[in-house]
Amino acid sequence: MFISFEGIDGSGKSTQARRLADFLRARGHDVVLTREPGGSDGAEAIRRLLVEGDPDRWSPETELLLFNAARRDHLERLILPVLDRGAWVVSDRFADSTRVYQGATRGDLRELVDALHGLVIRREPDLTVVIDMDPEVALSRGLARGSGEDRFEDFGLPFQQKLRAGFLALAGDFPDRIRIVDGMAGADEVARRVEALV
Amino acid sequence: MFISFEGIDGSGKSTQARRLADFLRARGHDVVLTREPGGSDGAEAIRRLLVEGDPDRWSPETELLLFNAARRDHLERLILPVLDRGAWVVSDRFADSTRVYQGATRGDLRELVDALHGLVIRREPDLTVVIDMDPEVALSRGLARGSGEDRFEDFGLPFQQKLRAGFLALAGDFPDRIRIVDGMAGADEVARRVEALV
Repeated sequence: MFISFEGIDGSGKSTQARRLADFLRARGHDVVLTREPGGSDGAEAIRRLLVEGDPDRWSPETELLLFNAARRDHLERLILPVLDRGAWVVSDRFADSTRVYQGATRGDLRELVDALHGLVIRREPDLTVVIDMDPEVALSRGLARGSGEDRFEDFGLPFQQKLRAGFLALAGDFPDRIRIVDGMAGADEVARRVEALV
Repeated sequence: MFISFEGIDGSGKSTQARRLADFLRARGHDVVLTREPGGSDGAEAIRRLLVEGDPDRWSPETELLLFNAARRDHLERLILPVLDRGAWVVSDRFADSTRVYQGATRGDLRELVDALHGLVIRREPDLTVVIDMDPEVALSRGLARGSGEDRFEDFGLPFQQKLRAGFLALAGDFPDRIRIVDGMAGADEVARRVEALV
């Protein structure tokens, strides 16, 4: 199975992706834990273009093409071969992040986002877990820490709130695939709920 | 006006692009000479991903996304602003190179090539000059020299012949925009013919 984790910065999705991979491995499964943007050699090289430099280094359209190039490489070189050998893929972010981030920055790009996805990606995870958290709480807990990758920093609380709303709305667009888990419950309890879902 | 030069390696298109820029400048025009892939800061960074590394570093689809990302950046950050200020753009390669190279390597990708162009580029040059040359002659004259950019080297004569046929066929697809100039005539004579066309 191909499982992705989504959520705002500080929601704990990376921790939960790692914990789920550990849980599945402890049960004897072959699991590859990966992330986006990046996850394969080529995609990590494209990631560096995306996360380094000035915030206006790329126009939204160019950025979208780079995200799709990275995702195509990640899919072809890592995700699909792993699934083909019968193993699990757990990814920290996938295409939903692009849908939500573009929606929060330039809503009029959603049509282009969907057109590119339909042309060169097409694949969706079998299950997507959105770890939901109030961005104000994530900030107050010190969970939303700087990643050292400048381009997506400092968008502030209103932007994080738009992202949160975007992830919740997306769950309505893909009701069979996306499940929301309350990230406020504490890491152990969240992990238990994710395991129950899977 | 926006003018592009196309042709196989060793056809003399880069020389002719530079000569046309010089000719127009000598007549008092504001001219920006540029190239693809590359031409703007962002596109040159993407170019490095495209030209460096193993020949199979990117799948044809990922490569196509990277070419379109570079072209979108080049168009938005350099070509359109230059045209908007009323100046000329002369570019060594543009979208026709993508059409022809993909056709010569993976013919079944032409639909994706056109779909991506229609989504994120749309713009065509006002005039495209194809410098036509027999690849065998280009090789024998030592014109097809290594560029130091590994990924597109060593495809050999049959590949160059497919490219040549591709450029000639493309002129039939865009009869109002693409003009073919015989590159065998010698650089001065070719330049004179290009100037007459423009």
